[in-house]
Amino acid sequence: MKDKGGVDIALIHYPVINKNQEVIGSAVTNLDIHDIARAACTFGIDDYFIVTPYEDQQQLVEEITDHWKTGYGANRNPARRKALEIVRVTSSLQEVIKTITEEKKAPIIAATSARQFEKTVSYRRCREMIESEKHRILLLFGTAHGMADEIMEQTDICLPPIKGAGKYNHLSVRSAVSIILDRLSADREEVG
Amino acid sequence: MKDKGGVDIALIHYPVINKNQEVIGSAVTNLDIHDIARAACTFGIDDYFIVTPYEDQQQLVEEITDHWKTGYGANRNPARRKALEIVRVTSSLQEVIKTITEEKKAPIIAATSARQFEKTVSYRRCREMIESEKHRILLLFGTAHGMADEIMEQTDICLPPIKGAGKYNHLSVRSAVSIILDRLSADREEVG
Repeated sequence: MKDKGGVDIALIHYPVINKNQEVIGSAVTNLDIHDIARAACTFGIDDYFIVTPYEDQQQLVEEITDHWKTGYGANRNPARRKALEIVRVTSSLQEVIKTITEEKKAPIIAATSARQFEKTVSYRRCREMIESEKHRILLLFGTAHGMADEIMEQTDICLPPIKGAGKYNHLSVRSAVSIILDRLSADREEVG
Repeated sequence: MKDKGGVDIALIHYPVINKNQEVIGSAVTNLDIHDIARAACTFGIDDYFIVTPYEDQQQLVEEITDHWKTGYGANRNPARRKALEIVRVTSSLQEVIKTITEEKKAPIIAATSARQFEKTVSYRRCREMIESEKHRILLLFGTAHGMADEIMEQTDICLPPIKGAGKYNHLSVRSAVSIILDRLSADREEVG
């Protein structure tokens, strides 16, 4: 695995912003763990990091994933077990980067955002980076109303916002992750 | 609105199949209502039909959507209100088709499935049908382990399965809806 290209994702619960643009920590949700793990596993993501500094929240994630990895759920639903096996709990983005760098290779940090930035690159460009297998990419997704500037400043590139049909644009983070992983993986010839 | 092209979606809770391929009715979930309504609203879907014959389940959907459309939630989160305003409760696929035909135009019924069928058309072809504005398309999504044959037999076309990176393919219906709406709507030049 070491020094090999590939993609990891991280779901950031702190620091994120609330609707008043204040920096907060958000709560981990069961559905974010399950839905995003299933999408990540479907699209061949190596590790899915849940990032929260709060110990009770970290413990909650461990309890949920343990149920499906080694508890009753593991026998009842082996497909769910496989998805949740890629989930890892970490306390900060720094820790995620350190872990990936030590275990695999220093990653290019890619933000996803509903806003446009100077460092925004196209989905095509990011897909080429992944397909070259020279780089590791770490995709960051924010909860609440998005990642705080402190996180955005640590990123190397940013993916374009998902544009809808009109002005309404309030996708859940679960939907945004699914769409972005599909855009970065799907056979574009087939999708047309 | 009458006789105009456009897209509606329906989430089928009966008849669907369970893991043993038996025909069952599944339970409505709060998250399916919210996440799919938000994605549908983002991608310009006209109506989002929740299909269940069970009166207690129909009532549950009404209670949830009322909270956000006229209750406390409407003031607290106007964006969520807008999304949930497109949610409609119906008892069967027949009723959905009848409603769309009476209010707008007889729709082409498009299935989505993890399986491949003879009537499968490409995403590109379906997008062309939508963009021509000559047709109304009704996209069907199944809960549990997918729609029963009885539903599949009533469809005119089917969209290709979403292929992942390997053998694992267990997306939530929320993820599948998000990806398919994006594939049918996104500016392909930009996504590349």
